[in-house]
Amino acid sequence: MSSEKPLVGIIMGSISDLPIMQAAADVLKKFGVLSELDVISAHRTPEKAIAYSQNAVKNGLKVIIAGAGGAAHLAGVIAACTPLPVIGVPIKASISLDGWDSLLSMVQMPSGIPVACVAVDGAQNAGILAAQMIATGDSALLQKIVDFKEELKAKVIAGSEELRKKQK
Amino acid sequence: MSSEKPLVGIIMGSISDLPIMQAAADVLKKFGVLSELDVISAHRTPEKAIAYSQNAVKNGLKVIIAGAGGAAHLAGVIAACTPLPVIGVPIKASISLDGWDSLLSMVQMPSGIPVACVAVDGAQNAGILAAQMIATGDSALLQKIVDFKEELKAKVIAGSEELRKKQK
Amino acid sequence: MSSEKPLVGIIMGSISDLPIMQAAADVLKKFGVLSELDVISAHRTPEKAIAYSQNAVKNGLKVIIAGAGGAAHLAGVIAACTPLPVIGVPIKASISLDGWDSLLSMVQMPSGIPVACVAVDGAQNAGILAAQMIATGDSALLQKIVDFKEELKAKVIAGSEELRKKQK
Amino acid sequence: MSSEKPLVGIIMGSISDLPIMQAAADVLKKFGVLSELDVISAHRTPEKAIAYSQNAVKNGLKVIIAGAGGAAHLAGVIAACTPLPVIGVPIKASISLDGWDSLLSMVQMPSGIPVACVAVDGAQNAGILAAQMIATGDSALLQKIVDFKEELKAKVIAGSEELRKKQK
Amino acid sequence: MSSEKPLVGIIMGSISDLPIMQAAADVLKKFGVLSELDVISAHRTPEKAIAYSQNAVKNGLKVIIAGAGGAAHLAGVIAACTPLPVIGVPIKASISLDGWDSLLSMVQMPSGIPVACVAVDGAQNAGILAAQMIATGDSALLQKIVDFKEELKAKVIAGSEELRKKQK
Amino acid sequence: MSSEKPLVGIIMGSISDLPIMQAAADVLKKFGVLSELDVISAHRTPEKAIAYSQNAVKNGLKVIIAGAGGAAHLAGVIAACTPLPVIGVPIKASISLDGWDSLLSMVQMPSGIPVACVAVDGAQNAGILAAQMIATGDSALLQKIVDFKEELKAKVIAGSEELRKKQK
Amino acid sequence: MSSEKPLVGIIMGSISDLPIMQAAADVLKKFGVLSELDVISAHRTPEKAIAYSQNAVKNGLKVIIAGAGGAAHLAGVIAACTPLPVIGVPIKASISLDGWDSLLSMVQMPSGIPVACVAVDGAQNAGILAAQMIATGDSALLQKIVDFKEELKAKVIAGSEELRKKQK
Amino acid sequence: MSSEKPLVGIIMGSISDLPIMQAAADVLKKFGVLSELDVISAHRTPEKAIAYSQNAVKNGLKVIIAGAGGAAHLAGVIAACTPLPVIGVPIKASISLDGWDSLLSMVQMPSGIPVACVAVDGAQNAGILAAQMIATGDSALLQKIVDFKEELKAKVIAGSEELRKKQK
Repeated sequence: MSSEKPLVGIIMGSISDLPIMQAAADVLKKFGVLSELDVISAHRTPEKAIAYSQNAVKNGLKVIIAGAGGAAHLAGVIAACTPLPVIGVPIKASISLDGWDSLLSMVQMPSGIPVACVAVDGAQNAGILAAQMIATGDSALLQKIVDFKEELKAKVIAGSEELRKKQK
Repeated sequence: MSSEKPLVGIIMGSISDLPIMQAAADVLKKFGVLSELDVISAHRTPEKAIAYSQNAVKNGLKVIIAGAGGAAHLAGVIAACTPLPVIGVPIKASISLDGWDSLLSMVQMPSGIPVACVAVDGAQNAGILAAQMIATGDSALLQKIVDFKEELKAKVIAGSEELRKKQK
Repeated sequence: MSSEKPLVGIIMGSISDLPIMQAAADVLKKFGVLSELDVISAHRTPEKAIAYSQNAVKNGLKVIIAGAGGAAHLAGVIAACTPLPVIGVPIKASISLDGWDSLLSMVQMPSGIPVACVAVDGAQNAGILAAQMIATGDSALLQKIVDFKEELKAKVIAGSEELRKKQK
Repeated sequence: MSSEKPLVGIIMGSISDLPIMQAAADVLKKFGVLSELDVISAHRTPEKAIAYSQNAVKNGLKVIIAGAGGAAHLAGVIAACTPLPVIGVPIKASISLDGWDSLLSMVQMPSGIPVACVAVDGAQNAGILAAQMIATGDSALLQKIVDFKEELKAKVIAGSEELRKKQK
Repeated sequence: MSSEKPLVGIIMGSISDLPIMQAAADVLKKFGVLSELDVISAHRTPEKAIAYSQNAVKNGLKVIIAGAGGAAHLAGVIAACTPLPVIGVPIKASISLDGWDSLLSMVQMPSGIPVACVAVDGAQNAGILAAQMIATGDSALLQKIVDFKEELKAKVIAGSEELRKKQK
Repeated sequence: MSSEKPLVGIIMGSISDLPIMQAAADVLKKFGVLSELDVISAHRTPEKAIAYSQNAVKNGLKVIIAGAGGAAHLAGVIAACTPLPVIGVPIKASISLDGWDSLLSMVQMPSGIPVACVAVDGAQNAGILAAQMIATGDSALLQKIVDFKEELKAKVIAGSEELRKKQK
Repeated sequence: MSSEKPLVGIIMGSISDLPIMQAAADVLKKFGVLSELDVISAHRTPEKAIAYSQNAVKNGLKVIIAGAGGAAHLAGVIAACTPLPVIGVPIKASISLDGWDSLLSMVQMPSGIPVACVAVDGAQNAGILAAQMIATGDSALLQKIVDFKEELKAKVIAGSEELRKKQK
Repeated sequence: MSSEKPLVGIIMGSISDLPIMQAAADVLKKFGVLSELDVISAHRTPEKAIAYSQNAVKNGLKVIIAGAGGAAHLAGVIAACTPLPVIGVPIKASISLDGWDSLLSMVQMPSGIPVACVAVDGAQNAGILAAQMIATGDSALLQKIVDFKEELKAKVIAGSEELRKKQK
């Protein structure tokens, strides 16, 4: 994982999506996976969206994470132009119908062009999933994911102990 | 309306959408508005989608109608690359969740990039709407739309008379 | 676009819808397209609704934008009585089921009477769409729309640059 | 109930809705309440819709039942123009999103203009409800409704007995 | 309308529903129709619910309005035991799924036992509807409803004038 | 389990629900738990519904299973009048909105009056659940449930082996 | 009910669910039924989830209540590994789509493995239901449930009286 | 890609899901990626589900694809016990509410345990996505995916040509 170049591109339709999408970058950093964040709109900067995805392999990216709200076309448009796996994060933006529009716009992709969709506002999971994908070819990273899952377990066990104490 | 070139581009994500989308061409023909039908996929032929919409003004188109099912990005991608009005027809394809995904993917467009959405499988209405748009600058066409509405009225009145007779 | 008379009628079911619907007038002003705002209820002032739409052509209107919440019949009733294109803005009013009722009441119009539906609370897009419709017969206005899309692009690029700086 | 004139107007948006709406007329006939069936479209024959409702009191109607599918505006438009109670029957037509659009377009009426909505395709209940409304001023009719409820009970009890026999 | 006894029973599942249901009583008072408010739960006081509806005719009631949230069975249970028309008001209580559960529990009544459903939280409309039902046998009350509709119209026209002034 | 009297009452709103509800009786028979089937409608035979549930304890019942479609009030009305646990089976009847109405009418019960809801058309699971409830006080029956789960496992393992063979 | 050991296990996916789930423990305490609360995650501590349910009978539990939000698998996983009845409480957590995901993940269990689902956030009802299940073999507890229902009735009657006073 | 052992495990909750899930194996075969199909139920064979996922890395798997219907817990349970990326295929089984339950049960996973969800019945896309994941560490496979996308493009272009011919 000593790459100088980002392995994961994290893009979002608007700068206002950053508070949600930052969580993907944060968890990737924890795993030692370099990522880059960018604002790219499928509707306002379509050429940039296409150029970004067409050049993604050449630029050293392994996975692209795309977050967007409303009629969320970003992940699909990116997936159309790159052979890399694309992870979609549906965002429950002010524009959206409680996230239903973002979710369906991302997950219901037609045959041939998959998007790996996570939960509404689930950017942290998108970051973990990106790490898992890269770890299919990187056993050191795979071990970090194993360790991460142990941490999760420890937190639940701590919650359990806290609750058991309260009951005594 | 004596143009030799099509004024309305009717595109669809897959040839399997033709039985739905043909209705748009048919009603435009009735109004004397020349249209062209094409298959363009936002996900499988993204460059063609962008080229089509970027060249649409130059090619003499006035309106574009785009029909697609599932995570239906076609209308949005087209709207991103042309100043022309774009009409979206959500299609209840076998892939879709009863049309909810297609509908939300088309109608919930973000600020700045409108798509004029019609009902699920509502291709005939898309054709009428395209004619209405062009008629904002074509009073002869406007009159044809007035006449068309009279025909609709006549059918309902015929239904009414049929029903009244039955009751006697 | 030097018309003295409004080309776009922007109507709403209740004065309480004005904060949403104003955005349509604002963006049209930006394009130099004169509009008028009015309160007309399909249910409380049906005769006015019908008179408004029946006289719309005579009064010089080219497009009508109608916003309403709940069981939102305004756009449909207007569309019934005019050959002009009608744009519907579903409003997520306090009365509504999170906008689902307004959306379905507007977009699912029967064959023959289209309404061009935009996103829930999407009045700005309704304004842009109205301008695009009129621009089918007005090349100067078409150029303004091209310029507007460039502005949108510039904002996204500014967001992108802001984000790239943060990462350094 | 010896009126020569219909007391209940049963209208529908299209002659294709007759197989559903007939059930309202049938149950009213059973109660001895005269009704009339007609085809009136809020969108294709708006003037007729308004004239029908404006003249309803004068024509001796006591209640109006309106059935429609998709963006079902008929009941609301009728209710706008008459002081009579209006019952809405949302129809799960081929055009509709499984009846959700028809239901929400009818039941979510704004303050001041109620529609009494029954279940999707629930025309029989609309007929019973119309009879119940008229029976608020007609005690003989009220008794017929009491009797009708006894019949319903008898059918359920018959079903119960049939089932109990099977189990022995 | 000079009755000493209430003509409309307005019942609700819980005292916490009063702020919503009061609107039905208020509008009926405006029409000069005497009503009574009561708390009756289909689930916590089922015998009272049944007794109330079985005695409703004897007690002089003409219409019953029932409001409830969540799995809202009150209107249906009342309708089961009285020949009077029953109006259901689905309430978007804290317990409910944004009102969808209340709405479907009320409107989707089986054949034979109608409930006249109004919009979510639409108690005012329930009151108006009750008055309209009683007015089928009371022409003075019918006139009051005509007047009420004129008031509604006046308010919309006032909103229209306010808006027109702002634009000058 | 040697009781001569039924321990589980399986009731349904209409004899047409029998093909669904039979599965509850069948699985209970498999567990050696005596059950009785009956048709009781919350809306058409409300007194019977109340009498049935009020007498349930006295009649030796331990659990009641209630299946209904549309605005499905049966389980709630039964639960209102008995201290026994009540299991609700939402039925996707022809009247229902794909089962959403039945499901929400059953599961969203207010505080104090629970209904144990199973999946739409899930009568077999209702039967198993009834057996599990009774098994809280019957260890022989508990063992039968353990055995039943082993059978389920065996079927899945058989499916697995069948599939593995196909792949060789 | 003099058991020293808990009869009901109340588990939740995260310590943050405690404010909702406490209501189950509280109502069980009121009935004199000993319960234990614990934090167990189907996804973060799957082995603990399985061990907990596999040992539940041996540990003296009679019923398990499981609360979780989002894709709520906890109740299903627990139900997979124990013959005891499992009650699911769908939680409208911040992660969830207004509770729809939690509800469907819990109620729509496949044939053979029931979960007794209560309303979204309905933990009190889960506690009552657990008591009802245990009461199938404990007549003293059954009487407490009868008494509890009387208390509920008293509260509604108090609300009714309060309201009747206000009207005088 | 010359591995003798499967790299992708394709599992499903029931043998009846095979007609849907086979498409994942077929597309992986096309890419030269060895896969294995198995039937594993989160609810009927939970120990096998856990053992399968705990041993997946050791057994040489790189990615797991899990398909299930209804309350579809399989993908989540698998993801809980392995550091490998897990792809979920929601299945519109006869048990399901048109696929909504399967979709939400899979996509709305809590923080820490992602599932990469594809469209309802989207098994082919799950296969492509698995190949894309493995291709992050296998450039020859990446090229095959590039070629596959060219094939998709060719089919759309063929559809386009077919349509253009028809119009002449």
